[in-house]
Amino acid sequence: MILALAGGVGGSKLARGLAACLAPSDLTVVVNTGDDFRHLGLWVSPDLDTVVYALAGLANRETGWGLAGETWHFMEALGRLGGETWFRLGDRDLATHVERTRRLDAGATLSEVTAALCAAFGVAHRVVPMSDQPVATVVHTDEGPLPFQHYFVRRRCVPAVRAVEHAGAHSARPSPAFAAALDDPRLRAIVVAPSNPLLSIGPILAVGGVRDAIAGARVPVVAVSPIVGGEAVKGPAAKILRELGHAASAATIATLYAGVADGLVVDERDRALCRTVEAAGLRVCVADTLMTDAQREAGLAQVVLAFAAELAEARGGRASA
Amino acid sequence: MILALAGGVGGSKLARGLAACLAPSDLTVVVNTGDDFRHLGLWVSPDLDTVVYALAGLANRETGWGLAGETWHFMEALGRLGGETWFRLGDRDLATHVERTRRLDAGATLSEVTAALCAAFGVAHRVVPMSDQPVATVVHTDEGPLPFQHYFVRRRCVPAVRAVEHAGAHSARPSPAFAAALDDPRLRAIVVAPSNPLLSIGPILAVGGVRDAIAGARVPVVAVSPIVGGEAVKGPAAKILRELGHAASAATIATLYAGVADGLVVDERDRALCRTVEAAGLRVCVADTLMTDAQREAGLAQVVLAFAAELAEARGGRASA
Repeated sequence: MILALAGGVGGSKLARGLAACLAPSDLTVVVNTGDDFRHLGLWVSPDLDTVVYALAGLANRETGWGLAGETWHFMEALGRLGGETWFRLGDRDLATHVERTRRLDAGATLSEVTAALCAAFGVAHRVVPMSDQPVATVVHTDEGPLPFQHYFVRRRCVPAVRAVEHAGAHSARPSPAFAAALDDPRLRAIVVAPSNPLLSIGPILAVGGVRDAIAGARVPVVAVSPIVGGEAVKGPAAKILRELGHAASAATIATLYAGVADGLVVDERDRALCRTVEAAGLRVCVADTLMTDAQREAGLAQVVLAFAAELAEARGGRASA
Repeated sequence: MILALAGGVGGSKLARGLAACLAPSDLTVVVNTGDDFRHLGLWVSPDLDTVVYALAGLANRETGWGLAGETWHFMEALGRLGGETWFRLGDRDLATHVERTRRLDAGATLSEVTAALCAAFGVAHRVVPMSDQPVATVVHTDEGPLPFQHYFVRRRCVPAVRAVEHAGAHSARPSPAFAAALDDPRLRAIVVAPSNPLLSIGPILAVGGVRDAIAGARVPVVAVSPIVGGEAVKGPAAKILRELGHAASAATIATLYAGVADGLVVDERDRALCRTVEAAGLRVCVADTLMTDAQREAGLAQVVLAFAAELAEARGGRASA
């Protein structure tokens, strides 16, 4: 059984690749909910939806978020009424938020709601929130503290980041399926998707007890670098790393995951960084990490799984030596 | 200045006719809010929207409710998720409910929200809720008590009506613009639109102090019968009147409005009922009341205004005699 930690776009691609390689009972994808927020009265879980839509085969491959073939009549009408349109909600996507909000308001947990949505969308692999307690990523910037979506969407990541806070994370508990996966005797590896280490994976690791549980896991923890050739494949990861005083490179990713991950998959373009990654204490694997189609997603998933198996074998060898 | 009391479809048509004849400052349309309900987390005001959309020139003339050229992608997606789809919300219409709910939750009154929506839709004539306090029409049926929309939409008016309750009406106050119109020295007449007397006009009259204020008004009160040839032009008015032991006729409308209205406009097809209407104490005016297009809407509005002027003159004559 494989446990994957995922944010939005990059996470959803590797999740789709892993789902292509693994039976539904052999994969649990734990998704960042630090981006979740109440907007227009609706509870929006952007990363959960991105992963679920991807596994359902309904994702918009151009934007990386939302549904393919979406229409925007609601949003246009809301704009004419002077409503808030900076966060785009498609007509069909809106049904997900309305139904999630209705179920949450009726007392269901986010795990229960997500399971119901997965069933409705025909997603057989387990996609679960990192926690059923609310965790809010706050981006402290040179313009002051900004709730995540205000930083990410409304301000288009323009303000310079000074620090990232995961409000509520310390007292939050891993969701039941996340906790169960961490304790599952069938667990073979933990995979950290090529999502933003500070904004997407950071909140998951910040949930009470998670960082220690993963750092002390008896199985290999393998991360995929979201930085390729000094730039993020998508999103503001490189910009934020630089603003926080880091080099935007796979080597920095290795530093950030040192003590948590055992191995890092870096892109072929970053082959020269292998020594630096190893100096941070991680084993390294070089691969083509750009998941531009379903075949490359599955291909990278297979590389990651093989790398994890290799690390497990090496660990077993050391243990028995 | 004319004050009109209106429900949904019939009310919106006469309101559109009056708006075609009167300057914006010379018309206030007070709309039933007993049908309002929270649905899918949204505050829906069906009659207000029907009247506003009609005056904005955006109404769907085929259905009598909703927007012309509407799409239903949200509703279809919600159905696929197992959500509640018995109350149809179009993609563009949804923006009205989201924006209304956002403003109400932020502390605005329904009057303030309605004024903002009217402005956004370019509606110059005043359309106002009957009250800013919630009033809920409950239909007591042979299947038990049903909230209005559950009776009207979900159960398609099938259960037999035993009584109609206006929960909260007694302690509700007329909205500020409604109260101001009743007290306005410029007020020349009160027009009761051809809406359901029990389900649409009943809630307005039930608001604290309204029935007495209208019954004691110094200006003529003129109603238009929603029953033509023994049937309702639209909706369940005839069925409900029969279930409550009344004949479904303009004569019954006269009985229901006796003591409140001074005159009743009946359709040409009901000319034979003039004596019965007069026996109930109302003056009668015969006209073609079927508002099948904009010209007929304005035509009926002119008849109603002329009838009111005639009653005012007769009243003035008596007063000075």
